[in-house]
Amino acid sequence: MLRSVITGTGSYIPPVIKKNSDFARENFHSEPEKAINLPSLEIIEKFRQITGIEERRYAPENINASDMAAFAASMAIKDSGIDPESIDQIIVAHNYGNVVNQTVQSDAVPSLAARVKHKLGIRNPYCTAYDILFGCPGWVQGLILAETAMKAGSAKTCLIIGTETLSRVIDRYDRDSMIFSDGAGACIVEYKEVGDEPAGILGAASRSDCTDEVDFINFGPSYYSEAEDNTRYIKMKGRKVYEYALKHVPQEMKHCLEKSGVSIDRLKKVFIHQANEKMDEAIIKAFYSLYGIQKAPEHIMPMTIHWLGNSSVATIPTLYDLVRKNELTDHALVPGDVVLFASVGAGMNINAVCYQLV
Amino acid sequence: MLRSVITGTGSYIPPVIKKNSDFARENFHSEPEKAINLPSLEIIEKFRQITGIEERRYAPENINASDMAAFAASMAIKDSGIDPESIDQIIVAHNYGNVVNQTVQSDAVPSLAARVKHKLGIRNPYCTAYDILFGCPGWVQGLILAETAMKAGSAKTCLIIGTETLSRVIDRYDRDSMIFSDGAGACIVEYKEVGDEPAGILGAASRSDCTDEVDFINFGPSYYSEAEDNTRYIKMKGRKVYEYALKHVPQEMKHCLEKSGVSIDRLKKVFIHQANEKMDEAIIKAFYSLYGIQKAPEHIMPMTIHWLGNSSVATIPTLYDLVRKNELTDHALVPGDVVLFASVGAGMNINAVCYQLV
Repeated sequence: MLRSVITGTGSYIPPVIKKNSDFARENFHSEPEKAINLPSLEIIEKFRQITGIEERRYAPENINASDMAAFAASMAIKDSGIDPESIDQIIVAHNYGNVVNQTVQSDAVPSLAARVKHKLGIRNPYCTAYDILFGCPGWVQGLILAETAMKAGSAKTCLIIGTETLSRVIDRYDRDSMIFSDGAGACIVEYKEVGDEPAGILGAASRSDCTDEVDFINFGPSYYSEAEDNTRYIKMKGRKVYEYALKHVPQEMKHCLEKSGVSIDRLKKVFIHQANEKMDEAIIKAFYSLYGIQKAPEHIMPMTIHWLGNSSVATIPTLYDLVRKNELTDHALVPGDVVLFASVGAGMNINAVCYQLV
Repeated sequence: MLRSVITGTGSYIPPVIKKNSDFARENFHSEPEKAINLPSLEIIEKFRQITGIEERRYAPENINASDMAAFAASMAIKDSGIDPESIDQIIVAHNYGNVVNQTVQSDAVPSLAARVKHKLGIRNPYCTAYDILFGCPGWVQGLILAETAMKAGSAKTCLIIGTETLSRVIDRYDRDSMIFSDGAGACIVEYKEVGDEPAGILGAASRSDCTDEVDFINFGPSYYSEAEDNTRYIKMKGRKVYEYALKHVPQEMKHCLEKSGVSIDRLKKVFIHQANEKMDEAIIKAFYSLYGIQKAPEHIMPMTIHWLGNSSVATIPTLYDLVRKNELTDHALVPGDVVLFASVGAGMNINAVCYQLV
């Protein structure tokens, strides 16, 4: 039986560490023109308690999203052992393209996928390179598109990358600026013979809610009008995102497991978008509740948000790469294990992929 | 036999007409700091002779790319007669997202597809909405992705849109600024029973050349340094693009016909990306030469570049919509006719789809 199998992973964890204490001098607002009347250290401590974020990583000044993507991709290719010239599709998920340091324009012409292909030196013209935009769930959606292409017979080997430099689109006056970070993660998926039993990608689900939800995460003006000009920044209606995610993500995870024919007790790990620790914990709890289980299994959910923050499309592939390479304590995986990738973000979009290690 | 069939089309042709004579006061440069030492009227006349462009359309100030996309989509849905809630995927191709008039930032958070879904009032959460970036060939690539999803069983009805406001990313000191324009085109594709013989999408081909070609079309500084600030604009190495296109587009069109099992004499029309009239004519000539045919059939290539300019991803769906609705003289189509869509653009990317009308 031919199935889509992840045969290599890679990630780029930027070297610039930005600690919570580095934000101590900011003048925080919670919404337009609404300064938070608390000492910044107190705001930061509350922030840490809710999100779990203690520090985050920013790309060095001379590194752009496409550079990080190429670093992660190069590692994934090496890990898989494939010939880069055998790649049929390069799919890059992002939301802001390349934003050169100290500038405000997003640059995705040519696409980041074309730039990655250039950097990797891949010459095969039939390696098609394109970008997709699907909010934070973009990398998981790339995985779904790759699986679709394989099923349809249009690809046998795909490189899927998520990359983002959110540090370059944050409003320093917005408390939420402390959430966002930079990074890239990648994987190689190959359509391979796995034997008689299903393995590799077992199933997927995705949804888009664009009625009232369309502006829950958007690109808007600074919260502090004396700030500067008409520059816009990443903006999030935190409470609404939280409520939306808690209502729909657990359902969609269950939907994905059902489509995959997998029972809840077979699930070994959930790789969830690193958005907010409390929110992720609440989602896991609600997910197990759907099966009548009061307490989620121990070590079900690896987390990197404490030290990596929310790097959008990069969080899940980076997390999976770290676990796959035994770099996170209590999170070893072995062949046969079944895991779930699940994400939520701007759109609003939600998706999930159920995957059995080969 | 189930096949992917275009059952509806729509386009948004912006109302603001910008004539060549409107550029007469510009201070044209052909490359950085290289002013063209000719009266602007002479530059404009030479430009017209090569590109065929006499006027182009710009979006009104209050209309963005996602608005144009929704207008075109709405028309395509109406034309097809489908229930909008039955759409499984909305795929929007663009390159610069929404660029609000008089600003320089690209905004694609949320994705333009999410905004289109919002504007159309589609509530079905399993209508997945995402954007793809693939240079000017993005709309044709969206068609290819839709066909792939249908073959793989993940969609039965797709809405594919191309939309762009290039007027908001042009450098007024660059002669090439006269090429670019705004617009949107859309189609509905359904997976339908077509009988025993093949029909609908018969085959597709695409390629990405990202070695030396990666910066042939890019985002760069103004050609006139006293101009302003560090703002970047769409930039094109015209000669290199021309040579690249002429070398590879005819080949890829032939490749697509071969994959589709279609002989050259069955081809009724070629819908080619509206980039430059002389280039498009040379491509058609070279394409027929590959079959040993010295002269391409009359009326093989409908053109809109004279009055619409190059609106990137929007050119082919707009052109097809106009021909399908009998709005271009000498270009009527009937069921059974075989046509070819072919495009080239930033990446560099080339693609083609062979389609038989049902």
